[in-house]
Amino acid sequence: MSLTIKLHVTTSHLNITTIKRPTLPRLRTTTKPIYHSDSLLCLVYKQKPTTMHEPARSTTIKSSLIEPDGGALVDLVVPESERGSKALEAESLPKVSLTKIDLEWVHVISEGWASPLRGFMREDQYLQSLHFNSLRVKDGSVVNMSLPIVLAIDDETRERIGTSPNVGLVGPNGDLIGILRSIEIYKHNKEERIARTWGSTAPGLPYVEEAITPAGNWLIGGDLEVLERIKYNDGLDNYRLSPQQLRNEFDRRQADAVFAFQLRNPVHNGHALLMNDTRRRLLEMGYKNPILLLHPLGGFTKPDDVPLDVRMEQHSKVLEDGVLDPETTIVGIFPSPMHYAGPTEVQWHAKARINAGANFYIVGRDPAGMGHPTEKRDLYDPDHGKKVLSMAPGLEKLNILPFRVAAYDTVEKKMAFFDPSRAKDFLFISGTKMRTYAKTGENPPDGFMCPGGWKVLVNYYESLQTEESSQQQAVLST
Amino acid sequence: MSLTIKLHVTTSHLNITTIKRPTLPRLRTTTKPIYHSDSLLCLVYKQKPTTMHEPARSTTIKSSLIEPDGGALVDLVVPESERGSKALEAESLPKVSLTKIDLEWVHVISEGWASPLRGFMREDQYLQSLHFNSLRVKDGSVVNMSLPIVLAIDDETRERIGTSPNVGLVGPNGDLIGILRSIEIYKHNKEERIARTWGSTAPGLPYVEEAITPAGNWLIGGDLEVLERIKYNDGLDNYRLSPQQLRNEFDRRQADAVFAFQLRNPVHNGHALLMNDTRRRLLEMGYKNPILLLHPLGGFTKPDDVPLDVRMEQHSKVLEDGVLDPETTIVGIFPSPMHYAGPTEVQWHAKARINAGANFYIVGRDPAGMGHPTEKRDLYDPDHGKKVLSMAPGLEKLNILPFRVAAYDTVEKKMAFFDPSRAKDFLFISGTKMRTYAKTGENPPDGFMCPGGWKVLVNYYESLQTEESSQQQAVLST
Repeated sequence: MSLTIKLHVTTSHLNITTIKRPTLPRLRTTTKPIYHSDSLLCLVYKQKPTTMHEPARSTTIKSSLIEPDGGALVDLVVPESERGSKALEAESLPKVSLTKIDLEWVHVISEGWASPLRGFMREDQYLQSLHFNSLRVKDGSVVNMSLPIVLAIDDETRERIGTSPNVGLVGPNGDLIGILRSIEIYKHNKEERIARTWGSTAPGLPYVEEAITPAGNWLIGGDLEVLERIKYNDGLDNYRLSPQQLRNEFDRRQADAVFAFQLRNPVHNGHALLMNDTRRRLLEMGYKNPILLLHPLGGFTKPDDVPLDVRMEQHSKVLEDGVLDPETTIVGIFPSPMHYAGPTEVQWHAKARINAGANFYIVGRDPAGMGHPTEKRDLYDPDHGKKVLSMAPGLEKLNILPFRVAAYDTVEKKMAFFDPSRAKDFLFISGTKMRTYAKTGENPPDGFMCPGGWKVLVNYYESLQTEESSQQQAVLST
Repeated sequence: MSLTIKLHVTTSHLNITTIKRPTLPRLRTTTKPIYHSDSLLCLVYKQKPTTMHEPARSTTIKSSLIEPDGGALVDLVVPESERGSKALEAESLPKVSLTKIDLEWVHVISEGWASPLRGFMREDQYLQSLHFNSLRVKDGSVVNMSLPIVLAIDDETRERIGTSPNVGLVGPNGDLIGILRSIEIYKHNKEERIARTWGSTAPGLPYVEEAITPAGNWLIGGDLEVLERIKYNDGLDNYRLSPQQLRNEFDRRQADAVFAFQLRNPVHNGHALLMNDTRRRLLEMGYKNPILLLHPLGGFTKPDDVPLDVRMEQHSKVLEDGVLDPETTIVGIFPSPMHYAGPTEVQWHAKARINAGANFYIVGRDPAGMGHPTEKRDLYDPDHGKKVLSMAPGLEKLNILPFRVAAYDTVEKKMAFFDPSRAKDFLFISGTKMRTYAKTGENPPDGFMCPGGWKVLVNYYESLQTEESSQQQAVLST
């Protein structure tokens, strides 16, 4: 799904040189991102930036708020001094081709979002993840790990690898990405993986159709080394703050609480109410400087979700319009692909935010859920996500903040927490309904979303329709 | 499947009156069990029986070898003094009808096999079981619980229960079984339960077809009370030793190690080799008196499995023939139904034996596995069972003894541990192949099974064929 909104912006006060590795290719600060403004970037860097420490490999730096899983953040980007020799080595090895989603996982693993995981799962890790949603680490403690983070290969690749203990990883564009060492190849029982991860094998599960069904019948696990930090060159790399960068930023801001909000949808005023209310509650609890990590998911999403760049623009409007307070909010992109695996996936979403330094996690109705692909019902019980999350092994140190349901109060004409005593006054506006409003050009009720944010969505759907109709015309005229 | 072998035996030295509750209906020691001999019962009671302590409700008696999960064996049979009043109360409550399999679970729960579970699962336990294969108990520790132990009800029953906090349980024969208290009713999402438990939703999973597909759309959890110890009056109740009875017997025999062998098939010499070899290894490890718990599963099995009574007779022959040593073996029936859920179920099999006092558990190839119901392959990777078991949360205190694969050595003409260096000398005789031999009257290779045991199987399959052909004749003549 390509984006057709292209707007020129200035990036004059985008001062991020202090956080990039001096040896990496220069960030494309001269390219023209799609945003009307750079208010999001302002959020992170509007204060005079201090020099951020480069994360060492397997650094032992610990957050003051919450320890990374396994005690240390994993960082698998090879040091500059070794890059040349590692690239030569990778070139000499049997190659494994990565899909776009595989590369997103390489990104996730290499930056430590999945700490203490140091590569694609070997079979013992895969089985623990699949059966127990957790991994036992060497000291006997347990960390959460609800999604199998695995790399599939086909018969031909397996044969080509032969007995080589290491393989080179090649990105979707043919560029050398890294090395997987001390590999283990084991069977990819897709049916079992899908059934245990989704609790369903119905046709039409988006991640399954995109990444599992077409994948090979083998999984390859091993220790990952990445030649360079993963970049997408889509104008959004600056928002892709690593767990270490986020931790550094929380420390710099002297946050005494960080509450993470995972989302893959535009922010409406119900979300904002909730985030602002969470902050209020944390202040009441005695915290002096709670910081919101507004953390949109940046990897694979299903085709009818709003694409990342449009969402990022929408989020920027929400902050510009003052619906969320830029002073106490950090916006970053969570690089994981989306599974739509409900209670299983919400654990991953929470666990990764532990590694990013958040000690509070907001969970709402039906997190990571969707409609059942073949039946007229939700795929998951909307309450199971928060229940499972609150009981999940390895997440005990994270404070789970269950969502109160917000809906449109037709009397007060604003988004408000649902009051069951006057249920008839409330209007629930689902994601589907919201998209229908935007597609048809109909306005949602006043107070549903800030006007600037809404405009972004309307423009996006208009551009989609323009694109579709020109495609249709092109088809008709040929 | 009815059994046609009926043989008169004496039960003169069957001295079990000391282990039954004096107030229960007298055990049918005068009925004629189906066995050629009572060698199995001899095993347990051939030594002068001491008085076995009646288990108190939630007794704190701990095994010297391994502590029950949760620290105390659950016993949910109401004391004699309260039985009358509880029966009256149960009679007055809204009723829930139990299927045969439900009653097997009542049996399992009431005797503490599933300790610390005190009834059918409420939703928080169900979700933990489904997602984590374990339950967190009040002190923060984790016990294994891989199978959801749940009771399904239909819409009509749910409506009839209304707001009653307690329900009466009625057995398949209409007899009052017990009470479920402080109930919680929640949705029975069959698809999710099946997918997460079996890792497959393929049609043809035996437990699914028997117990889940026809069941209601609601699950009812609560605290169980059982009016009387569950009996089946099939001549085998004496073998249904409760976890407390087994623990008492291990103590009485002064076992310093107990190794459990779960089985649902006839014992062939490969099994025996393994059990005897395990004993040898334990002696080598310094144990002085390792006791084997030969523990056939007694609940639901799929129609083409050998039925319990035939298996029990076969086991008795194996002991009579000296293939296993009666002096160091205890035979009991494990009352659980069979799920055929492979790596998920083997955890349940092991966990229940912790509660029964076994501190060693033997695990073989493809435990609790079966062929895929719609594809030409095993449903589970044959190695996953032992791998998952060795990593399962809550089973750390149990010593897992992985099986070496035994097969028929055509050179030595006996069952032996498979030697890959001369693979061609070995013949693998699957359960299916064994059944085919027995059905067709063909003898398996010498040394596969003791002759007495084999005869039991041949007789059984002959009787089946006789039954089938007389049914066919009856159909033809009408």
